[in-house]
Amino acid sequence: MIIIGELINSTRKAIKKAIDEQDVEYLQDLAIKQEEAGTDYIDVNAGAYVYDETKHLVWLVEKIQEVVKKPLSLDSPNPKALEEAMKIHKGVPMINSISLETDRYNKIAPLLKDSGAQVVALCMSDEGMPESAEDRLEVGKKLIDKLDKDGIDLTNVYLDPLIKPVSVEGKYGPQALDAIEMFKKLESGIHITCGLSNISFGLPNRFLLNQAFIVLAMGRGMDSAIIDPLDKKMMSLVTATNVILDMDPYAMNYLKAARAGKLI
Amino acid sequence: MIIIGELINSTRKAIKKAIDEQDVEYLQDLAIKQEEAGTDYIDVNAGAYVYDETKHLVWLVEKIQEVVKKPLSLDSPNPKALEEAMKIHKGVPMINSISLETDRYNKIAPLLKDSGAQVVALCMSDEGMPESAEDRLEVGKKLIDKLDKDGIDLTNVYLDPLIKPVSVEGKYGPQALDAIEMFKKLESGIHITCGLSNISFGLPNRFLLNQAFIVLAMGRGMDSAIIDPLDKKMMSLVTATNVILDMDPYAMNYLKAARAGKLI
Repeated sequence: MIIIGELINSTRKAIKKAIDEQDVEYLQDLAIKQEEAGTDYIDVNAGAYVYDETKHLVWLVEKIQEVVKKPLSLDSPNPKALEEAMKIHKGVPMINSISLETDRYNKIAPLLKDSGAQVVALCMSDEGMPESAEDRLEVGKKLIDKLDKDGIDLTNVYLDPLIKPVSVEGKYGPQALDAIEMFKKLESGIHITCGLSNISFGLPNRFLLNQAFIVLAMGRGMDSAIIDPLDKKMMSLVTATNVILDMDPYAMNYLKAARAGKLI
Repeated sequence: MIIIGELINSTRKAIKKAIDEQDVEYLQDLAIKQEEAGTDYIDVNAGAYVYDETKHLVWLVEKIQEVVKKPLSLDSPNPKALEEAMKIHKGVPMINSISLETDRYNKIAPLLKDSGAQVVALCMSDEGMPESAEDRLEVGKKLIDKLDKDGIDLTNVYLDPLIKPVSVEGKYGPQALDAIEMFKKLESGIHITCGLSNISFGLPNRFLLNQAFIVLAMGRGMDSAIIDPLDKKMMSLVTATNVILDMDPYAMNYLKAARAGKLI
């Protein structure tokens, strides 16, 4: 399971404040904690800065990479911000995200070419968000084909089926899981990821629905998620789920986490 | 999700002691707590009493039914004990369990006939426990067919695929889940259940593996489990999983549990 740590996001109040105040220590500490918790990519998002997102994203990359070894996930729909952040990112970053929306695709795809970057690809087209699992499959397939034709290594692609809240429609839960399974069955080499907290929007005790969803989604083939890696209960469930799904040979990671007192 | 509360089992030290001392209050309290926690059947097991199991099982049924309305799951492989316990059980009990083992089958099947009892059916034959998911399907299908031919309403049958520990073989996790999905796809009307804690045998922090397993198994179609209904975290995950799988219309049960402060 590949974890993308979501905490350094300027749309979160505390992060916006830390960036405003150039509180490097706070941001670096949060990056280190996420790395220690086992995150594979550390997401950085400066989207709250509408007019100077590029400047702030570049600053975040510089400061965060001073203290962590894990690559960053550059989180922006803005091609200019992504381009500048990629220039200074040490090693191979993840780009979060591309979609099938014409303008966005055409501007971001060239950045990926020959970069070896990982990329989150949203199941979204000019027609907006797809409805059913089948609609998602159709948009996703087109997006995968297009990336493939444009020379992007599909093993670098993290397809996000886009999760809708079960509070709006109960069927959105099974639809999301069915979409994940369908993508898995394509055997195209892509990864499947999602920012999962949308599933629980509008209901109480959201943490619990998010926990159930991530386990269910892993059971259907999701191999990555954009989550808070400091959520110990969720990380524990991910670690346990890897054992049950036979994705953790000899339960080595599980036993290591147990010995470190990380499992709750 | 149909919950069979497993706590009143004489192979547990505290229960054996309570039965030995005829501590009715303790046992009744445990039954009430399980009912309040949302269990659908309360399992009663007197298997620790090798020579007078029947007497103790009958006593348990009498005492427990004095205080709870939910039916009991009469837990014994002993036809005599089951027969006597069924005679005094008020309402329709669950029988736990039958299997394809010739002697056991032939003695227990007649008890089920015309009783309307629910029955746990173990995927086990004279050849012992099956190995792969396919082996389980073969044994399970034979058992379902046999019960059907013998006039047992299949909607009363709770097939238990028998779970083996992932500590012994990593593949036992996926095999158990695959078996559940295969049984679900038969669309025979049966329920699928299991005593799930065997999955985590031999590993630390077993509660966590059990939690991950029950969510994964529900995702593949398991609609019942034999568990500790006082395990609040597991019950919370079951309640949340029902929402994600669209098995809880308008999240009514989930919201009720949230309001009652039961979700952790």
